[in-house]
Amino acid sequence: MNPATRPHPLHPSTVLVLLFAAAIATGTLLLALPLAQRSGLGGGWLTALFTATSAVCVTGLAVVDTGTHWSLFGQSVILGLIQIGGFGLMTAASLLGMLVNSQLRVRSRLLLQAENRALSLGDVRSVAKLVAVITLTVEALATLALTLRFAFSYDMAWRDAAWHGLFHAVSAFNNAGFSTFPDNVMRFVADGWVLSPLMAAIVIGGLGFPVLHELLLRRRDRVRLSLHSQLTLAGTAVLLLGGALAFANSEWNGTLKSLDAAGRFWGALFTSVSARTAGFNSLDVAAFNTETLLLHDLLMFIGGGSAGTAGGLKVTTAGVLLLAVWCEVRGYRDVEFAGRRLHEGALRQALTVLVLSSAVIGLGTLTLVPLVQHLPGIRYEAVLFEVVSAFATVGLSTGLTPQLPPAGQLLLVGLMFLGRVGIVTLVVALAQQASRRPYRYPEEKPLVG
Amino acid sequence: MNPATRPHPLHPSTVLVLLFAAAIATGTLLLALPLAQRSGLGGGWLTALFTATSAVCVTGLAVVDTGTHWSLFGQSVILGLIQIGGFGLMTAASLLGMLVNSQLRVRSRLLLQAENRALSLGDVRSVAKLVAVITLTVEALATLALTLRFAFSYDMAWRDAAWHGLFHAVSAFNNAGFSTFPDNVMRFVADGWVLSPLMAAIVIGGLGFPVLHELLLRRRDRVRLSLHSQLTLAGTAVLLLGGALAFANSEWNGTLKSLDAAGRFWGALFTSVSARTAGFNSLDVAAFNTETLLLHDLLMFIGGGSAGTAGGLKVTTAGVLLLAVWCEVRGYRDVEFAGRRLHEGALRQALTVLVLSSAVIGLGTLTLVPLVQHLPGIRYEAVLFEVVSAFATVGLSTGLTPQLPPAGQLLLVGLMFLGRVGIVTLVVALAQQASRRPYRYPEEKPLVG
Ligand SMILES: [K+]
Ligand SMILES: [K+]
Repeated sequence: MNPATRPHPLHPSTVLVLLFAAAIATGTLLLALPLAQRSGLGGGWLTALFTATSAVCVTGLAVVDTGTHWSLFGQSVILGLIQIGGFGLMTAASLLGMLVNSQLRVRSRLLLQAENRALSLGDVRSVAKLVAVITLTVEALATLALTLRFAFSYDMAWRDAAWHGLFHAVSAFNNAGFSTFPDNVMRFVADGWVLSPLMAAIVIGGLGFPVLHELLLRRRDRVRLSLHSQLTLAGTAVLLLGGALAFANSEWNGTLKSLDAAGRFWGALFTSVSARTAGFNSLDVAAFNTETLLLHDLLMFIGGGSAGTAGGLKVTTAGVLLLAVWCEVRGYRDVEFAGRRLHEGALRQALTVLVLSSAVIGLGTLTLVPLVQHLPGIRYEAVLFEVVSAFATVGLSTGLTPQLPPAGQLLLVGLMFLGRVGIVTLVVALAQQASRRPYRYPEEKPLVG
Repeated sequence: MNPATRPHPLHPSTVLVLLFAAAIATGTLLLALPLAQRSGLGGGWLTALFTATSAVCVTGLAVVDTGTHWSLFGQSVILGLIQIGGFGLMTAASLLGMLVNSQLRVRSRLLLQAENRALSLGDVRSVAKLVAVITLTVEALATLALTLRFAFSYDMAWRDAAWHGLFHAVSAFNNAGFSTFPDNVMRFVADGWVLSPLMAAIVIGGLGFPVLHELLLRRRDRVRLSLHSQLTLAGTAVLLLGGALAFANSEWNGTLKSLDAAGRFWGALFTSVSARTAGFNSLDVAAFNTETLLLHDLLMFIGGGSAGTAGGLKVTTAGVLLLAVWCEVRGYRDVEFAGRRLHEGALRQALTVLVLSSAVIGLGTLTLVPLVQHLPGIRYEAVLFEVVSAFATVGLSTGLTPQLPPAGQLLLVGLMFLGRVGIVTLVVALAQQASRRPYRYPEEKPLVG
C-alpha cells in the first residue's frame, strides 16, 4: 500500500466527522421546530438530538414513537436524515476525500483495498452515479411492493399506504430500522409479502458499496470476484442462515411459540436478516430470553458489509479474524481464502477494530449501568444489549432506551456517533497512515498461550 | 522457526495430555479410598474425580471442604497432585518432548521461543534441576514463614501449623488455590505476615519457567532480557497494580467497607495478586458486586506467565494483542516493544488462543446455564464467573460449584482439563507445525471495519 502521505489541510476522515456532525446539528434544529411535532410545541432538544443522531447514524433507537410523536414534516426530516446518513454521506465522504487532494493522489480506500487498483476521477463519478441508481431503484421497487400490499391487504388509504411504504423502503435499504408503526413491523410477523421486500432491501443495502459495484459492473467481465466480495457474500450467507437456525432454536418455545409454521419461518428468517444491522423487529425484543439476547449481541457486533449502511465490526473483519485462526490451527504459512492470501495488514486492522470496539462496548456498559440502576428489574444483559445495539447502529431495544435519564440518552448518542463515524474514521486513518520509522528493530518471538 | 517435522510415534503434546489424564486417574483412585476421607467411607467417585482434576490442573475449585472432608492422607494426595500438576508435570512434559525425538532435533518450544536458540540435552538437565531448586526453595521459605506465623500468632500446635504452612506454601507456589481452612484465607484478610509469603510464592510461581530461568541464570551475563521476559514482567506489574486499584474502586463500599486502612490495602492487593490464577480468596467472593465479578473475569481470562503454573490466555498473549493494536493505531509497520519487533507468527498464535478460549468460555457458559436454572437466584454473571474460573484454572467461586448437579461438575472437569492441557497442547502443536503448502497464493487485501 502506498498512500499519498503529504499533509492535507483537512484529512478526509476529519471531513467525514464534520459532515456527520453538521447533518446531526441540522436535523436537531429541524426536529425541534413546532412544525415537526404533532403536539405543535417546539423544543424537546434532547429528544430532537437523540432522534437526529439515531437517524443520521441509521440506528433506529427511539425515545419517542416515530409515528405518533412526529408530524409528517418531522417524519420527512427523519427520512431525509436516514438517506443522508446511509448511502448519501458515504458517497459524499468518498468524493470529498478525493477532492481534498487536488493531485488525485489519495487513492480511495473504499475501492482501493477491495480492488487493489488506483482510481481515476471517472471511476469516482461512475461510483457516485451507481450509488444513486442502486439506491433509487431498490427503494422504488420496495416502496412499490410495500405500498401495494399495505393498500390491498391492510385497507389503508393510498396516501397512507404510499407514505408507510416509502418510509419503510428507505429505512430498510439504509438499514435504519425506523418504523412509522408503534409496534415496528410486529403486525407483519407472518406476512411474507411485507417482509420479503424489506429483507431484500436490507440485505442489498447491507452488503456495502464495493460489493454492489463489483456485482453490477464487473460481472459482465467474467473476472473472479475480489477477496473482499467473496468474504462478504460467504459471510453474509453463513450469518443469515446460522442466525435464523440459532434464533429458531432459542425462541422455538418462546416468542415463536404462538405462531404457525409459516409464522415461525418468517419470524426466524426476518429476525436473522434484521438483527445484524437493520434493527426492525417483527417479534417482541423485550420477551426474548437471555440466550437470544446474547445471540443478538453477537450478530449485532459482527454487523454487515463494509463501506455501506451497516454498522458493527463488519463481516469481513470477523471473517479475517476467523480465517486467521483457522489457518493457524491448520498450520498454513499464510491466511488464505478462496485461492488468495490475505495481506498481513488486514489482520492487524481487523484485530484493532475488534479490540477497540470491545473496549468501547465494555466501557459503555459499565458507564450505563449506574445510570439505570434505579429502574426496576434491570438486568445486565439488557444494558449490554442496548449498548451493543447503539454502537453497532442496529437500533433493536428491549425497551430500555425510552426509560433512560438524560445522561443515559447522551451516552447512547455518543455511542451511535462513535459506532457509525468512529470505526470508519479509524479505518480510513489507519489505511492512509504511513510507517513513521525509517528502520526496523531486530525480531524476537515471545511465548504465547 | 525451523521445527523438525518428521513424524513421531507420539507427539510430545499427546504425551502431555496422557500424563495429565494418568495423574488425574491415579488421583481419583486414591481419593476414592476410605483412607482418604474423614468419614472413613470410600467411593464418591465424582467428588474424587472433581477434586483430583482440580488439583492436577491447579485450579482449586472444590465441591467439598478440603479441610473437613478429606483425611490427612487425602489432603496429602491433593498436595502431591498439585505439585505434580504444577511445575512437576510441566518439566516432565518438556523433558519427554525431547526424549521422544531421539535425534534431539525437536527443539524445546518452551525455551526455543523465549530465547530463539536451540537447546542441548545439557540445557534440559539444567532446566530440570533449576525447576526443582526454585520449587523447593520457594516452597520451603514460604512454609517456614507461614508455619511460624500460624504457631505464634494463631496459637496452633506446631504440627498443625507446619501442615497448614506446607499445604498453603505448595498450593500458593503452584497457583492451586486449595486451602485447608473452610473459609480459604479470609481469616487472614488484614494479616500481611500471612499474605506476603503467599503473594510472593504466587507471583514467583506465576511468572513461568522461561522468565525465572532468565532472571536467575542469565542475569549475571548482563545480557538484556528477552522480549518474552520483558513483556511478562511489565504486564504482570501493570496487572497487579491496576487490578488492585480497580478492585479497591469497585469494592470500597462493598466487601472492603468493614475493614480499616491496613485491611483495605492488604485486601485489595491480595485479591489482585490472587485473581489472575492462584484463586485464594481473602474476601467473600459471593458478596462481590457485578462490576467486581466482571473485573475478575477479565483478570482470570488474562492469567499469568507462560509455561508455568498459571492458566488463562497468559500475560504475553494479551500483551501481544494489545501491542499490535497500539502499533497499528500509531501507524508503525511492525509490532514493537522495548526495541524489538514481534515475530508475525506470535500475533496469529495470540489471536488463535484468544478466539478459541473465548469460544470455549462462551459455549461452556451456555451449556452450564440450563443445568443451574433450577437453583434459586442464579445470575448469568455468576455462571460466567464459574466457567472462566474453571477454564483459566483459577478456582475462585461465588459458591455455585458445590451446588452443581453431576452434569455440571463434569462440565467443569472438562473445562479445567481443557484450560490447563488444551491451551498448552494447542500452542505446542502450533509451534511445531510446518506449512503444508509448497507455494503461496497471490495476495489481496479485503476492506476491514
Ligand atoms: K439500524
Ligand atoms: K488456581
